[in-house]
Amino acid sequence: MSKVFGVEYPIRFSHCDPAGQVYFPRFFDLLHDAMEDWFNIGLQERFSDLLMRQQLGTPTVGTQCDFLSPARFGDVLAIELSILRLGNSSIELLFNASIEGRACLKCRHTICMFSKETLKSVPIPEALRARMRDYVVSAE
Amino acid sequence: MSKVFGVEYPIRFSHCDPAGQVYFPRFFDLLHDAMEDWFNIGLQERFSDLLMRQQLGTPTVGTQCDFLSPARFGDVLAIELSILRLGNSSIELLFNASIEGRACLKCRHTICMFSKETLKSVPIPEALRARMRDYVVSAE
Amino acid sequence: MSKVFGVEYPIRFSHCDPAGQVYFPRFFDLLHDAMEDWFNIGLQERFSDLLMRQQLGTPTVGTQCDFLSPARFGDVLAIELSILRLGNSSIELLFNASIEGRACLKCRHTICMFSKETLKSVPIPEALRARMRDYVVSAE
Amino acid sequence: MSKVFGVEYPIRFSHCDPAGQVYFPRFFDLLHDAMEDWFNIGLQERFSDLLMRQQLGTPTVGTQCDFLSPARFGDVLAIELSILRLGNSSIELLFNASIEGRACLKCRHTICMFSKETLKSVPIPEALRARMRDYVVSAE
Repeated sequence: MSKVFGVEYPIRFSHCDPAGQVYFPRFFDLLHDAMEDWFNIGLQERFSDLLMRQQLGTPTVGTQCDFLSPARFGDVLAIELSILRLGNSSIELLFNASIEGRACLKCRHTICMFSKETLKSVPIPEALRARMRDYVVSAE
Repeated sequence: MSKVFGVEYPIRFSHCDPAGQVYFPRFFDLLHDAMEDWFNIGLQERFSDLLMRQQLGTPTVGTQCDFLSPARFGDVLAIELSILRLGNSSIELLFNASIEGRACLKCRHTICMFSKETLKSVPIPEALRARMRDYVVSAE
Repeated sequence: MSKVFGVEYPIRFSHCDPAGQVYFPRFFDLLHDAMEDWFNIGLQERFSDLLMRQQLGTPTVGTQCDFLSPARFGDVLAIELSILRLGNSSIELLFNASIEGRACLKCRHTICMFSKETLKSVPIPEALRARMRDYVVSAE
Repeated sequence: MSKVFGVEYPIRFSHCDPAGQVYFPRFFDLLHDAMEDWFNIGLQERFSDLLMRQQLGTPTVGTQCDFLSPARFGDVLAIELSILRLGNSSIELLFNASIEGRACLKCRHTICMFSKETLKSVPIPEALRARMRDYVVSAE
């Protein structure tokens, strides 16, 4: 049985465009925040240490996002994160975001583990990988 | 005895610049978030309703900010908000932000209550004003 | 023979993350800027008038982006925009961005024409549609 | 006779809030962009090289900004930059921004020259300082 990591964020004034709705690039900020919290809380690995001390980065390789319904100023966005594919150095994440049960967006998002020293992708550290395994979606 | 509203926010990857520190305009996003939370929680007035339903805005008239020490990715920023001057339609806020007790910034920030219909400043609604009074700093 | 709309933007300090590279959500800001300039310059339709006067919006339906190589502070990003599919109310755009000839990202991005009054999608106004037709990629 | 550095930027969709006006922290992004262009064009010193190669930063010490009138989506913001005070390592800048001659904001903004290696403020390099001198406002 796989785990899903969930967080809730308020939609802020700063996220919204002249139509009073979330301007789509701000959704990606919110998805990144959810990923940071997943590392910090779900995986018990401080994301800032990973980058600033271990000199590992997690650049985005690609993203595919369907925007299903708008989010408005004052809404609370619930984001769920799981793993679709856990590769050697790459991780395909699945984000589902909703507002009071209404689907808001669905995003498949691939990052990779990257050494800021060698400027090359590197295998996910084994201890971290073991904790990630719990979040891999089983047999879709 | 005056009240102080306090919140804590994590410093996110998205706040930080190539030096690994908060890029100063992002501090203003965080101060605005604190003000939203003050309305929502401290004043028990949904900030989004104020803007979207009551058609009142709170444009910034002026801001004066001293940046005292850097905030870095992974830090937790504690923000305290109080009122320096409660005018008829304008409010001068005082923000003090710190990281583990170290002062990070101090900001005097003036907003005014504004009608989105008449496009003019309007008196702060009396019920809201009464709740704001608790946060006025007494005799500095 | 189809037209391609091209713009160049400097990579700003504000776009870059603690690794000194463009933080991926900022790329979407840059792609949106390119789309605005395409409306303003390429299509000779003021994008701000479309939204603020004609009460038409262009919400994003979906986006699919491959990040091929990093962009760094001080680089100049060249963005090319064309149309993959011109529907009744939806438009699938293709963005290719590069730095001195090196491919940086490729994005398929679908927007739709939307009435802010009826809150429904509407056909692209015919005069605008005629000008868009020049940018449709011919026989891939 | 002192020089004034001027730039013009379009107000973008991404700068604007649910009231259709520039959200005030975005003005600081625009002022920083103007400062970058001043270094690059006015001072003939690539700002990105200063930071990434010479390991010098220009952190903001303080800012004081009066917002005089709103800027709206589709406006063109004209920013003028000059120097109020050229210290040993600190520089007090004056920004005046306007839209078609209407004053939009006035900002006094102090940065300092900072070594990313020693993490201390350092004197402004003499060649750069000589070029900055032209922009010092004479006897106000």
